[in-house]
Amino acid sequence: MKVLIINGPNLNLLGTREPEVYGTVSMADYLEKLEAEFSHDAISYYQSNIEGEIINRLQEDNFDALIINPGAYTHYSYAISDCLKNIRKPKVEVHISNIYKREEFRQKSVTAASTDAVLSGFGMNGYRLALLSLKA
Amino acid sequence: MKVLIINGPNLNLLGTREPEVYGTVSMADYLEKLEAEFSHDAISYYQSNIEGEIINRLQEDNFDALIINPGAYTHYSYAISDCLKNIRKPKVEVHISNIYKREEFRQKSVTAASTDAVLSGFGMNGYRLALLSLKA
Amino acid sequence: MKVLIINGPNLNLLGTREPEVYGTVSMADYLEKLEAEFSHDAISYYQSNIEGEIINRLQEDNFDALIINPGAYTHYSYAISDCLKNIRKPKVEVHISNIYKREEFRQKSVTAASTDAVLSGFGMNGYRLALLSLKA
Amino acid sequence: MKVLIINGPNLNLLGTREPEVYGTVSMADYLEKLEAEFSHDAISYYQSNIEGEIINRLQEDNFDALIINPGAYTHYSYAISDCLKNIRKPKVEVHISNIYKREEFRQKSVTAASTDAVLSGFGMNGYRLALLSLKA
Amino acid sequence: MKVLIINGPNLNLLGTREPEVYGTVSMADYLEKLEAEFSHDAISYYQSNIEGEIINRLQEDNFDALIINPGAYTHYSYAISDCLKNIRKPKVEVHISNIYKREEFRQKSVTAASTDAVLSGFGMNGYRLALLSLKA
Amino acid sequence: MKVLIINGPNLNLLGTREPEVYGTVSMADYLEKLEAEFSHDAISYYQSNIEGEIINRLQEDNFDALIINPGAYTHYSYAISDCLKNIRKPKVEVHISNIYKREEFRQKSVTAASTDAVLSGFGMNGYRLALLSLKA
Amino acid sequence: MKVLIINGPNLNLLGTREPEVYGTVSMADYLEKLEAEFSHDAISYYQSNIEGEIINRLQEDNFDALIINPGAYTHYSYAISDCLKNIRKPKVEVHISNIYKREEFRQKSVTAASTDAVLSGFGMNGYRLALLSLKA
Amino acid sequence: MKVLIINGPNLNLLGTREPEVYGTVSMADYLEKLEAEFSHDAISYYQSNIEGEIINRLQEDNFDALIINPGAYTHYSYAISDCLKNIRKPKVEVHISNIYKREEFRQKSVTAASTDAVLSGFGMNGYRLALLSLKA
Amino acid sequence: MKVLIINGPNLNLLGTREPEVYGTVSMADYLEKLEAEFSHDAISYYQSNIEGEIINRLQEDNFDALIINPGAYTHYSYAISDCLKNIRKPKVEVHISNIYKREEFRQKSVTAASTDAVLSGFGMNGYRLALLSLKA
Amino acid sequence: MKVLIINGPNLNLLGTREPEVYGTVSMADYLEKLEAEFSHDAISYYQSNIEGEIINRLQEDNFDALIINPGAYTHYSYAISDCLKNIRKPKVEVHISNIYKREEFRQKSVTAASTDAVLSGFGMNGYRLALLSLKA
Amino acid sequence: MKVLIINGPNLNLLGTREPEVYGTVSMADYLEKLEAEFSHDAISYYQSNIEGEIINRLQEDNFDALIINPGAYTHYSYAISDCLKNIRKPKVEVHISNIYKREEFRQKSVTAASTDAVLSGFGMNGYRLALLSLKA
Amino acid sequence: MKVLIINGPNLNLLGTREPEVYGTVSMADYLEKLEAEFSHDAISYYQSNIEGEIINRLQEDNFDALIINPGAYTHYSYAISDCLKNIRKPKVEVHISNIYKREEFRQKSVTAASTDAVLSGFGMNGYRLALLSLKA
Repeated sequence: MKVLIINGPNLNLLGTREPEVYGTVSMADYLEKLEAEFSHDAISYYQSNIEGEIINRLQEDNFDALIINPGAYTHYSYAISDCLKNIRKPKVEVHISNIYKREEFRQKSVTAASTDAVLSGFGMNGYRLALLSLKA
Repeated sequence: MKVLIINGPNLNLLGTREPEVYGTVSMADYLEKLEAEFSHDAISYYQSNIEGEIINRLQEDNFDALIINPGAYTHYSYAISDCLKNIRKPKVEVHISNIYKREEFRQKSVTAASTDAVLSGFGMNGYRLALLSLKA
Repeated sequence: MKVLIINGPNLNLLGTREPEVYGTVSMADYLEKLEAEFSHDAISYYQSNIEGEIINRLQEDNFDALIINPGAYTHYSYAISDCLKNIRKPKVEVHISNIYKREEFRQKSVTAASTDAVLSGFGMNGYRLALLSLKA
Repeated sequence: MKVLIINGPNLNLLGTREPEVYGTVSMADYLEKLEAEFSHDAISYYQSNIEGEIINRLQEDNFDALIINPGAYTHYSYAISDCLKNIRKPKVEVHISNIYKREEFRQKSVTAASTDAVLSGFGMNGYRLALLSLKA
Repeated sequence: MKVLIINGPNLNLLGTREPEVYGTVSMADYLEKLEAEFSHDAISYYQSNIEGEIINRLQEDNFDALIINPGAYTHYSYAISDCLKNIRKPKVEVHISNIYKREEFRQKSVTAASTDAVLSGFGMNGYRLALLSLKA
Repeated sequence: MKVLIINGPNLNLLGTREPEVYGTVSMADYLEKLEAEFSHDAISYYQSNIEGEIINRLQEDNFDALIINPGAYTHYSYAISDCLKNIRKPKVEVHISNIYKREEFRQKSVTAASTDAVLSGFGMNGYRLALLSLKA
Repeated sequence: MKVLIINGPNLNLLGTREPEVYGTVSMADYLEKLEAEFSHDAISYYQSNIEGEIINRLQEDNFDALIINPGAYTHYSYAISDCLKNIRKPKVEVHISNIYKREEFRQKSVTAASTDAVLSGFGMNGYRLALLSLKA
Repeated sequence: MKVLIINGPNLNLLGTREPEVYGTVSMADYLEKLEAEFSHDAISYYQSNIEGEIINRLQEDNFDALIINPGAYTHYSYAISDCLKNIRKPKVEVHISNIYKREEFRQKSVTAASTDAVLSGFGMNGYRLALLSLKA
Repeated sequence: MKVLIINGPNLNLLGTREPEVYGTVSMADYLEKLEAEFSHDAISYYQSNIEGEIINRLQEDNFDALIINPGAYTHYSYAISDCLKNIRKPKVEVHISNIYKREEFRQKSVTAASTDAVLSGFGMNGYRLALLSLKA
Repeated sequence: MKVLIINGPNLNLLGTREPEVYGTVSMADYLEKLEAEFSHDAISYYQSNIEGEIINRLQEDNFDALIINPGAYTHYSYAISDCLKNIRKPKVEVHISNIYKREEFRQKSVTAASTDAVLSGFGMNGYRLALLSLKA
Repeated sequence: MKVLIINGPNLNLLGTREPEVYGTVSMADYLEKLEAEFSHDAISYYQSNIEGEIINRLQEDNFDALIINPGAYTHYSYAISDCLKNIRKPKVEVHISNIYKREEFRQKSVTAASTDAVLSGFGMNGYRLALLSLKA
Repeated sequence: MKVLIINGPNLNLLGTREPEVYGTVSMADYLEKLEAEFSHDAISYYQSNIEGEIINRLQEDNFDALIINPGAYTHYSYAISDCLKNIRKPKVEVHISNIYKREEFRQKSVTAASTDAVLSGFGMNGYRLALLSLKA
């Protein structure tokens, strides 16, 4: 299975950004582990701080399943939401922290209704659970 | 690991209630599968339609980890939320359907901030993913 | 026809509770009259102050038609609402007083959309009109 | 008993207008049935699409009891509401469809608090139930 | 000076309608007194329950000054408000009762910003004060 | 093609009413031009300040296509909106000024969702564009 | 009749403050005219920028009737409102400009419900009309 | 004097639940002290996590005065509020913590208007002050 | 113990102001009783209608404990709230009437979160209960 | 006339994206038709998923008239709105679907007030009508 | 240049009040430094806890430029705002703390729109920056 | 000190864009002056219309202090706000115009709480004041 993992703005800094919220593991290290565990799957990774580049990447549509953490765009990017709605593959939204424990604006997701399912608060393990669910 | 799974109101009807939303598998059947897969763990199951009985059960506090699907109480039971806040064990909230795709009142959870993490939209598989996360 | 009448919290006090709002007839006396008038129908009556017990009773599903006055639960019990949605029998919601003439919170019903029809402000006669409608 | 039935805007089209919502019976046919059943009562019928003409008709005040379906004016005509408040006869508001199952603007009634009681969702039978209640 | 006085819906019933709010003097009697006091002015009076007829009357524009009590239309008739904005004569809005002491919906006027000044709570005397102000 | 053009309240004053907003061309003059340009179509014109008369005219339903500028009724007439929903002909809503540049209440249209398409801010030319679209 | 006129904050600057809104007449000059016209009445005048001093003055209660322009305190001084409610004399609230034509916060009056009547938009003449109404 | 003290959900855990908010004294210990101090009064105590059981207990109505801490039900139980309204005995609502210093949802009480008085933020001493007030 | 009691605007009129709400006992009489009962404590009393004078008095900070009834300033004086936050002595907010039974604006307190505890609805006895709590 | 047509995010997929909403014609094909019909005009076309690139393109300002469909950016891009405000050329906003018939967030346009006119619901033909209007 | 610096309620306590928010420098000490740095300018300083006294001081209007920190009055004093609007001198609003990082009510300023510019979060240095800007 | 100045969308047009709001000085000219005045500091300048490019530039983190004018992104870019929160250098937000005097949406800043301080309304001089504050 070809799985695309997309991370939104500031998530390139995982491991150093607000570690009390997001932990100390970098995405590169975590991806290595994921690839080891899911060695029969092809995992692609894409990160961008630019809203429209995320849309460009999504439109390439060269994957069997999608895991997306839209970062702060979760809360206002109707453009990404529209794009996701058009993807007819299994797709899961992941949030590293439990968004219900944070600022009020983070408790609204404009993208979640365009995906199949949502995971929030599992730390980096959220990506793995999402992958497991896509394989199920 | 002793895991307690709690289901809230109307979730005793899983398999027959609005199958287009909740699927056709009964909880009993699903639990059997879970127990087979996680044979080294002790899984207890409790369901009640009565808000305060759920609190009673939670207060027994005889488990190592908690999976809770508060059903409709998710959206207004500050009493269950207060009770959950007092549970100092790993705890995950599960919703079978993707609550972001449903009525507006279902998009507010007053209990989620009292748990560690939330899963929504994975169907019955959500319970399994929650279990996996608790073991991780 | 087997008709179930369910009354919610504090409606066991009909006849003595706020008589200027709810009148002076007790439910027992009123039921007697109803049974006399509808002697060919089997009328069951259930009252509980406990939200979840009302759900339990509804889930027994041993009736042909339902009349429900959820009392104060009308305004916040999404749990009863979810349960009603699952009842595929004719079902009518009754309010003794005209809820549009009372406090603002009483003008919102979270259960009405899960029933077929609503009656409000007819006093005890509302139960009789509901019965007539179910027989029509 | 002299009963006036008033229908508001677009209700002259009953039977052909959105039949999936309002049914296929015309008001004329339904009135005939009502008159047959309530042959001892004098039933007058008035329909207008014009808000102020409905007020004019109400102000004639030549009836013993009133049944009114203000149609879309239900949701914003404070003028009709003020007029109804001044009518000191038994008066019932009727809605053919269950307004709680429809658009949000239809769930607010500015006229209901000026009547004695409200019926919603009983189809054309609502007029008959209103009549029965007025005779009770 | 030619003064037009316009009264909106239900104000034809002044003297009998909710006398505890609007008093017991009829408009006819009150107009007689006004005409006696302002014998050098030509006072025209127009009342309608129909929103659009009030607009028709206003568009005739055959007056030097305007006194308008739009009744319940005060609170939602943007159509009358648009029409008033186009009248380039002195114009005063009058309310018999003090609208700040009544229901919340009566505290919003969509027409007041299209007139020069507003009087509220002076009883029938409000019309006289308006007339005095127009002559000043 | 038989096209009906309906104008709502105060639009009989086009050419003299707030010319900085609505321009200086009268509707009569504009219609003449339209008829010249679209000489193969039968254009009917109806204007009324009375909400219910607009509904009466719409219910005659003797046209192939509809252009409607509901004027101020755009913002609150659920009665006209209900009526439009029942018209199963091509129908376009026109606003002479750009309603997004004006007061906030003008930015909400309760009628637009009952038509096929909306034009706003093209001045009188909006009627012509609507006609062109209906012919396309 | 002993009449007290109270002006709130910044109204000591009448005649020089925002003359396009409040005109060019000073309160002193205007009071002189009022006293000339109402020579049989005793008019007292009090102005303060300090909310509590206005309350102190009101509590002296040595007048037969009250005219108050609370200035900006109109919009938030529940303390003055409470004080006014306790004054059992005829009392009129005056605003020089038409508050419905100004900023949104000026369209809410927390004091008006504690007076008998309200005048707005008559310029300085509002004080005179208030006096006339108190004498009526 | 027979005084009933009712505690709502999770208040059976006083002494161990969030001690930084609710202190370290258990209700049993505190009641002992109260009984010692008020030895001439008969103090009954009832706690339940179940909303409807609290209503059941209140309806027994076998007391002269009531002290109630509805816990989280304070914020949404219109059912308990309705029940309290029907109790025609002196009744005081107590909150251990100062609810104004906590989450926003805790600052709304739907039950307080059905009691005579409210105490908030006095710790366990609040029950004693309530008792003193009932005896005064 | 040196206790300062502060009363806000209009509370100098206790005993005569709206006696159906605030009772018929004057503050002077009540203070006498308090001083008799608490003869070992030094009770100071200060009342002002002027918001800033209350702040001035609070800043003197020459007391061991504080009882404050900010009157109408409760609902909007962030200035008093800021001042109270800076007082590091035991401090109790008192309201004579049950603010939950009154107008909506009275149900919001901007000062309560700056005090330790709040009492509402105990009549004049509230001051005594506050004193008892401060001594406990 | 040099006309620039700008399409926002996801509009590069016209013809395949949600065809039940946006139709089956691709933009390339549609542009060909437009160029044929308006052969005397120079039509440039630009599409980007990136908000800031649309601003860059607009700032080039090398056109006589503008047609813009900002896609999902319509609803939140104050940056594009600011940019449009600075364009002093004729400019029309186009929406392919009738935004009034869709989700609530689509009924708010933050860009429309920065253009001259808006077209919504005419399908691809909207671009043509916009062009016609710009030439008029 | 004659510069007036006005500080609102509780700002006389700078240096001791909530030092973690406002720092430990007293205003007197800070003013000394300012006067040393700006020895060619005449700096006047005024502080009051009384809203109306601040207005009194502003109305003296004996300065060339104004620096004002209205303290808590920033958030509700329309009276000070009205007064500031009338000052036709350069005027700057200063907040010591970054109001965007504090309670929600502090993020609304009703006075800022009546000044030329606003500084927030620079600590005491904000007064110096304001002075520099006034001299520029 | 190495200072980075970042300007958001449309601020490349300073000097020509809405000069009545933003003045007639170009950023290039202004920077020259700044560099002359602060010749001992290294000032870098970056402008982009693309939200994510601003984040990319901020993440380079090669500066000692930051001045940012996020332009329209101020009002909705939670992505830039998250990025700023992660910058642990002195950082000041600058707005050229007084945002409190402009449209309501401009009065909300989602980025300001992620910076240390905010300047608004000082024209281009705001950048200089920010620089002075960073050096202080």
